[in-house]
Amino acid sequence: MEFSSKLLEQAVYEMSQLPGIGKRTALRLVLHLLQQPEAQTEQLTEALTGLRTGIKFCKNCHNISDTELCEICANPNRESAIVCVVEDVRDVMAIENTSQYRGHYHVLGGKISPLDGIGPQDLTIYSLIEKVKSGAIEEIIFALSSTMEGDTTNFYIYRQLEGLNVKTSTIARGIAVGDELEFADEVTLGRSILNRIPFENSLKH
Amino acid sequence: MEFSSKLLEQAVYEMSQLPGIGKRTALRLVLHLLQQPEAQTEQLTEALTGLRTGIKFCKNCHNISDTELCEICANPNRESAIVCVVEDVRDVMAIENTSQYRGHYHVLGGKISPLDGIGPQDLTIYSLIEKVKSGAIEEIIFALSSTMEGDTTNFYIYRQLEGLNVKTSTIARGIAVGDELEFADEVTLGRSILNRIPFENSLKH
Ligand SMILES: [Zn+2]
Ligand SMILES: [Zn+2]
Repeated sequence: MEFSSKLLEQAVYEMSQLPGIGKRTALRLVLHLLQQPEAQTEQLTEALTGLRTGIKFCKNCHNISDTELCEICANPNRESAIVCVVEDVRDVMAIENTSQYRGHYHVLGGKISPLDGIGPQDLTIYSLIEKVKSGAIEEIIFALSSTMEGDTTNFYIYRQLEGLNVKTSTIARGIAVGDELEFADEVTLGRSILNRIPFENSLKH
Repeated sequence: MEFSSKLLEQAVYEMSQLPGIGKRTALRLVLHLLQQPEAQTEQLTEALTGLRTGIKFCKNCHNISDTELCEICANPNRESAIVCVVEDVRDVMAIENTSQYRGHYHVLGGKISPLDGIGPQDLTIYSLIEKVKSGAIEEIIFALSSTMEGDTTNFYIYRQLEGLNVKTSTIARGIAVGDELEFADEVTLGRSILNRIPFENSLKH
């Protein structure tokens, strides 16, 4: 693409760095912003900057939060002894949306994926193990996507928990194997939490 | 969607204001930015702000340009007496990409579209007519998309040019009727410029 303006080219280039946004789509988005009042671009850039610089993570569950403790961890009516292990904030949102779960979460921040260079040390696994060692947790529910990376991560954590006094379970799979959790419908996802099974059982395919 | 953070919610909301970006896609894009170094968000927001506040339009053809006269209008080797009328910068880029055209452009900034509240006064039609009246233009080539709005705009301009001493032509349609110009392949688009026909002829379907 030959651009008539360096400013335009730069904006399109940066926009096309986002996943799934090609050069052509980026140009369409940028030209759209040019047709809108300047305030819209301002609001977008301020919101992105505000999030990127002001982002905080709950010191207990590592979910994105505006406060030291997220609303879920700070809520005395939630069962703190049950902890659902998820990949990221989208999974917390998906499970919360079912209104079926009253425990806490632990947000890993990803899955173990050697191909992407993501190892256990890049996730919040250590902090989860420490929480379990402190004796405050009765049950860990694995709720990662049922992909190879999800299974690897579940198993890695499971091995770290061996010898510790904690029950482990995994959400029931009404969801097709390989599907991402966030795309599951609410009813299926809610039921799969209620029907969770001991993690050991999930190993016997 | 219930967000765990107002900052996150605001960023997703602003991102989802872009055309074709739903809430779920917006969340994916925003979470991607959070996983990248802070510099990437900075570069994106600075590029968008830089374009939106620094944008200039060529005083001759109204194309997006970093200088008073765009490179095409400032190039003495281009034929300034031939003017190709297009909707926006994407069409200029598409035609330039064919390397078949050596004239100037006139960027309208849109098409007449009563449903979207866009009338002739919202486009740069007046400035085109003035250029023709000054006697410097020999031929106007209509190269708008062959949609109802494109045809309406062509015809409106054509009527305004009546009685003025200027040839009008329209690019040959090797391109499917209803297709956007920017998606045409280079060869078809290049040929359609070379084989342009008098505009009057295009009215006799
Ligand atoms: Zn929390
Ligand atoms: Zn120009």
